[in-house]
Amino acid sequence: MKKILLLTTGGTIASVQGEDGLAPEAAPTAFDRIIREYSHYYEIQSRNILNLDSSNIQSEEWRLIAQSVYEALPDYDGIVITHGTDTMAYTASMLTFMLENLQKPVVFTGSQLPISSPLSDAPGNLATAFAAVDAGLYGVSVAFNHKIIRGCRAVKVRAMGFDAFASVNSPYRGEILASGLEVYDHSAPPEGQTQLNSRLCNDVFLLKLIPGTNPQIFDALAQMPYRGIILEAFGAGGLHFIRRDLSEKIHALVEKGVAVVVCSQCLYDTSDFSIYEVGRKILEAGVIPAGDMTTEAAVTKLMWALGQTKRLDGVREIFERNIAGEIHLA
Amino acid sequence: MKKILLLTTGGTIASVQGEDGLAPEAAPTAFDRIIREYSHYYEIQSRNILNLDSSNIQSEEWRLIAQSVYEALPDYDGIVITHGTDTMAYTASMLTFMLENLQKPVVFTGSQLPISSPLSDAPGNLATAFAAVDAGLYGVSVAFNHKIIRGCRAVKVRAMGFDAFASVNSPYRGEILASGLEVYDHSAPPEGQTQLNSRLCNDVFLLKLIPGTNPQIFDALAQMPYRGIILEAFGAGGLHFIRRDLSEKIHALVEKGVAVVVCSQCLYDTSDFSIYEVGRKILEAGVIPAGDMTTEAAVTKLMWALGQTKRLDGVREIFERNIAGEIHLA
Repeated sequence: MKKILLLTTGGTIASVQGEDGLAPEAAPTAFDRIIREYSHYYEIQSRNILNLDSSNIQSEEWRLIAQSVYEALPDYDGIVITHGTDTMAYTASMLTFMLENLQKPVVFTGSQLPISSPLSDAPGNLATAFAAVDAGLYGVSVAFNHKIIRGCRAVKVRAMGFDAFASVNSPYRGEILASGLEVYDHSAPPEGQTQLNSRLCNDVFLLKLIPGTNPQIFDALAQMPYRGIILEAFGAGGLHFIRRDLSEKIHALVEKGVAVVVCSQCLYDTSDFSIYEVGRKILEAGVIPAGDMTTEAAVTKLMWALGQTKRLDGVREIFERNIAGEIHLA
Repeated sequence: MKKILLLTTGGTIASVQGEDGLAPEAAPTAFDRIIREYSHYYEIQSRNILNLDSSNIQSEEWRLIAQSVYEALPDYDGIVITHGTDTMAYTASMLTFMLENLQKPVVFTGSQLPISSPLSDAPGNLATAFAAVDAGLYGVSVAFNHKIIRGCRAVKVRAMGFDAFASVNSPYRGEILASGLEVYDHSAPPEGQTQLNSRLCNDVFLLKLIPGTNPQIFDALAQMPYRGIILEAFGAGGLHFIRRDLSEKIHALVEKGVAVVVCSQCLYDTSDFSIYEVGRKILEAGVIPAGDMTTEAAVTKLMWALGQTKRLDGVREIFERNIAGEIHLA
């Protein structure tokens, strides 16, 4: 019987209706019922480490969650973390980088309706998460709506629907069907010792372009203490340069020592800044292409990379390395 | 035989491979071939008005395109506009607002591969656009990959794939099947005279949150000449308030007279800032909810609304009105 630790952090799954809207409560008794039900199949222990709406989960919580997982790993076959859905993709991506050479399963899940609701998706999502641990799917995953997604490939695409997460540019790792759990990911876990490396830098800004974005914003950003900027460009790698020239300003930021990572505001497929003329210009200026990474993975990888090195070259080297399936390298 | 005007503006569809990457050329002869082929079915005239990669299409071009469409409308049954895919959803959304009471079809299309390529999706996309005009599908649409999408509901979700556009929170208006064009949208066109109203304001900024977004950015934005800000929050309407309190800063911006519109970074479903406590707080502070609008529609509607009125109340009134199917009102 597999030994599973259930870490709870708050989120809708643990929320109850209060006077001012939904808010998570510390230890909803509904969790106990689920744990009792599944005790026929798994040995489950639970621990409440946070009690937050995931919109409030930031780098301080990422570190706490990573630390809690790291400390518990030797004693369990895998860890299931319940977490609000709103920033789950960011947390799962960040833990992918913080927990190096992770050989055991660490599975995030949550729900769109509280576990206390009779219509809740929580029981099914928890069952999927437990199954992912049972199957030994190594590394960080998100289990949702009967699918198992690589943590650094998950994106929340639905604000309301139960099919809330997409697996972007990467197949599902597994899926619950009438035949039970079908595992599609048969890759080998990483070798080497599992290590916790939670150094990161908070001074990162995400800039999503709109047509006519005023280049002055780059002057404002240059005045702020940002060490990294992720630029969500158009399509495969477009940005405007007539009348409002963004490329010159981006060049100046790179010259100043800011790590500028470029990705696409399209959900799917890879960005490729070498296709169009203006993309080539900013590549020559020294921006770092994020390829087919999700924005969530690019943001967290940049924060993590800036925690590892002060050198722009060092950040670039980290981005040119596929750490845990977050990027397909050419 | 329907009379169609083909307005060309550049984009990948009209691009050729140059030394510095793909760049649009003024009048690719491949267009002539297509026009000749379809002359058995439609009377097509063409006019080249721009020659730009759509990443360079900004408010000045929106006005030019809207003006060109408006002037041509009396002489044609409908207008097809070829346009780069990268910002097509923004342009289509903006024209939705600029062309009031549009009773004739105005259909955007383009392609992921140039029309000169033997593998191009251009012929199929143009055929779909012509069919949308032929069917009399009023208002602004995007025709792509055999589907017809309401212009203000289109989002480019694929950087490379031919199925590049999603119809977000709205069914397809029509689709090409083995049976020919199936029309799903049987709604009645708007009444009243078609009017061109292309006043807009460029001083709009899009802020997509990440976990831990430094509230200082709002101080920087307050120093800049922005009259409107669109905030892409988490999930159904989350933003952080512990340690880094965004709500107070948002409140200050609204007090200063900036129109702050809030939407979700989730692609699908509606945002609802009344569900969670912090969302309610900023609603009380006077932010304007974008409901189930796409980010592209919210950005362009805000730019257009700020061109119509200087009063925050006036902007709110415009956002509380469904102009052309861009929002489902409760």
